[in-house]
Amino acid sequence: MTPPAVTMSFADPAVAAVLGAVVEGAPLVHCLTNIVVAGFTANVLLAIGASPAMVENAQESGEFAAVAGSVLVNLGTLSAERERAMRAAAAAAHASGTPWVLDPVAVGALAHRTELARELLRFHPTVIRGNGSEVMSLAGVRDAAGKGVDSAAGSADALDGARWLARSAGCVVAVSGATDFVTDGTEVVAVPGGHLLMTRVTGVGCALGAVMAACCAVDRRPVVAAATASAVLAAAGERAAAGNPGPGTFAVRLLDALAALAAEVRPPAT
Amino acid sequence: MTPPAVTMSFADPAVAAVLGAVVEGAPLVHCLTNIVVAGFTANVLLAIGASPAMVENAQESGEFAAVAGSVLVNLGTLSAERERAMRAAAAAAHASGTPWVLDPVAVGALAHRTELARELLRFHPTVIRGNGSEVMSLAGVRDAAGKGVDSAAGSADALDGARWLARSAGCVVAVSGATDFVTDGTEVVAVPGGHLLMTRVTGVGCALGAVMAACCAVDRRPVVAAATASAVLAAAGERAAAGNPGPGTFAVRLLDALAALAAEVRPPAT
Amino acid sequence: MTPPAVTMSFADPAVAAVLGAVVEGAPLVHCLTNIVVAGFTANVLLAIGASPAMVENAQESGEFAAVAGSVLVNLGTLSAERERAMRAAAAAAHASGTPWVLDPVAVGALAHRTELARELLRFHPTVIRGNGSEVMSLAGVRDAAGKGVDSAAGSADALDGARWLARSAGCVVAVSGATDFVTDGTEVVAVPGGHLLMTRVTGVGCALGAVMAACCAVDRRPVVAAATASAVLAAAGERAAAGNPGPGTFAVRLLDALAALAAEVRPPAT
Repeated sequence: MTPPAVTMSFADPAVAAVLGAVVEGAPLVHCLTNIVVAGFTANVLLAIGASPAMVENAQESGEFAAVAGSVLVNLGTLSAERERAMRAAAAAAHASGTPWVLDPVAVGALAHRTELARELLRFHPTVIRGNGSEVMSLAGVRDAAGKGVDSAAGSADALDGARWLARSAGCVVAVSGATDFVTDGTEVVAVPGGHLLMTRVTGVGCALGAVMAACCAVDRRPVVAAATASAVLAAAGERAAAGNPGPGTFAVRLLDALAALAAEVRPPAT
Repeated sequence: MTPPAVTMSFADPAVAAVLGAVVEGAPLVHCLTNIVVAGFTANVLLAIGASPAMVENAQESGEFAAVAGSVLVNLGTLSAERERAMRAAAAAAHASGTPWVLDPVAVGALAHRTELARELLRFHPTVIRGNGSEVMSLAGVRDAAGKGVDSAAGSADALDGARWLARSAGCVVAVSGATDFVTDGTEVVAVPGGHLLMTRVTGVGCALGAVMAACCAVDRRPVVAAATASAVLAAAGERAAAGNPGPGTFAVRLLDALAALAAEVRPPAT
Repeated sequence: MTPPAVTMSFADPAVAAVLGAVVEGAPLVHCLTNIVVAGFTANVLLAIGASPAMVENAQESGEFAAVAGSVLVNLGTLSAERERAMRAAAAAAHASGTPWVLDPVAVGALAHRTELARELLRFHPTVIRGNGSEVMSLAGVRDAAGKGVDSAAGSADALDGARWLARSAGCVVAVSGATDFVTDGTEVVAVPGGHLLMTRVTGVGCALGAVMAACCAVDRRPVVAAATASAVLAAAGERAAAGNPGPGTFAVRLLDALAALAAEVRPPAT
């Protein structure tokens, strides 16, 4: 494993520029996601100024993916209909050049969704975002299976697999962990920071995938877009964790912190 | 466009009377709604003293609509099964005289759900609640399509369409916006107030439809019921926005404010 | 009705021991639950240190039930696919000896789900958790139907039915109410406490079923496991209700209180 060459954080001007473009452009982010985190994901996107819309039936998801600013396909709580809608959305996003993010929740732990995730790779996601176990599983590393939706592997352990996956799938891969890593197969950006409380609230990882989709809608450099999303969540997580609140309070403050960060990068009205 | 003749707010005795009847009667509100807002909607209904129940499969939704106090049909996150359940619930509500509210989420932006909404009009909703784009689309106004689930049109722009829709569908139409308008095609009630933060939290509009359903269960004057719901949400939004909190804190306080308003109209126990 | 012989509360060393085992073991709890409460349920499980995972499609739920620490089957917001997934999960849990909890939401009020719940009894749930009306309905008591998802009967009224159901189904039955009762058909444990605000927030009862599943994963005495879950929720509810907050604030504090209780029973790191 080669050490990452670059580190990014919220203090980086590139991060402020991408988040500012989200605030300014209010991109329509089409989310196919799961019943556990759908509300929280929508609130995270609203907090940073994006415009979330969840359309998850097969009749509409392709039509909508072609007009949306970007698409999120999150494999949690699959159903037969949601799977058809995901295939239609991924295909339409690919055909129309709409950036899209694949979040392969629990891939590796379950055979069916591992196959589905591999199948969706044909539609060339812009970014794949997962934890160490998910990324290693998609990269074909043996014994990578996590525990349910949680990772058994650290993000650094998964870095070689992430690079391989990025090159073979022709996309950017983002591995979440104590430090997040974003790679296009060659370049690696490390985003440290965040807080342990982010793992004690459901949906923070899923929301990170959604924020990556929002950033991809306004910036066509997927490494920068994905690293921006990680840096924004990490900074918001640190603010929200000040004083070490309980997880209920932390989740509320995380939304407040995201909105505050978005307000800070917004140029003052003239 | 004729200016509205009447303005209502939470200070209006009719509003307190209807909300008091909800608190007293604890109506069973049967919600067919979407995965993004289901939890928040239930919490809003509980906060005002109603009894929410979400039954969204086709085998049960008709049976349940016939015994519920009212029904909400919200078209977000459609699925084939949820659509069948919605048709069954709307048909049963119509047949049994149960008041029901149609919330045509994103109608106009997507062809499939525009057709579904038109089809459901056959079962004569008591109230249709939407934003400007949704109402104009249902009224057949060209180029009314919103951006995903958000409106591209103000509520006042949609007022002529709302009146036409109310007359042609034989129901009450409520248009949400900076000022909400409620019309039966002739009379128009304006409900000003609320706060911009209500658009920065997912599900406030959807919850408004649910509160309209709760009010329709206890008062058979749908204009008064719908205007009451708007006035209650507007007043709660203003209270919750005091001090301009972040959106996470605002959503929590909105539930607190709704419960406080419900407690204020409750006659003291004797 | 014989008075219960034993009362348990959070002060009981057995409760601290079982909760401590959850914190230590972080059991994987496989939840098949409804769209209203899925996010809150996951956050409650995370707050006590368990590892929630929601897998609700028929292709995966059986495979996952065999490897999970325990399974929750909650009948809210049924769909045809979720029903197939529930049958597969219950069958796999039974076959592999994985403890599982049945939460028969709104059984009695709706014929279809009453049949489904009876059918699932074939797979011998470890614990059935319901309110008075649900338990009486499953026990075959006439006129037990609740109002939607809410109970028309107190928990004490349902105690004879609960005992009968426990004996006939060969499982433990937990009846929720102002006082919770847990019985294996012979022994009865009463868990008093909690707070009325727990009924003003959606999903507290559903989350209780999930906490029972977490406790069953670490302790094979289902009466103790179920009573522990009730005692933990009751204690957290009392803490969260201090100062009588609104329901929005209460729900946030309930998660904080659960995490605080879990931290208190965790042995200090050495």
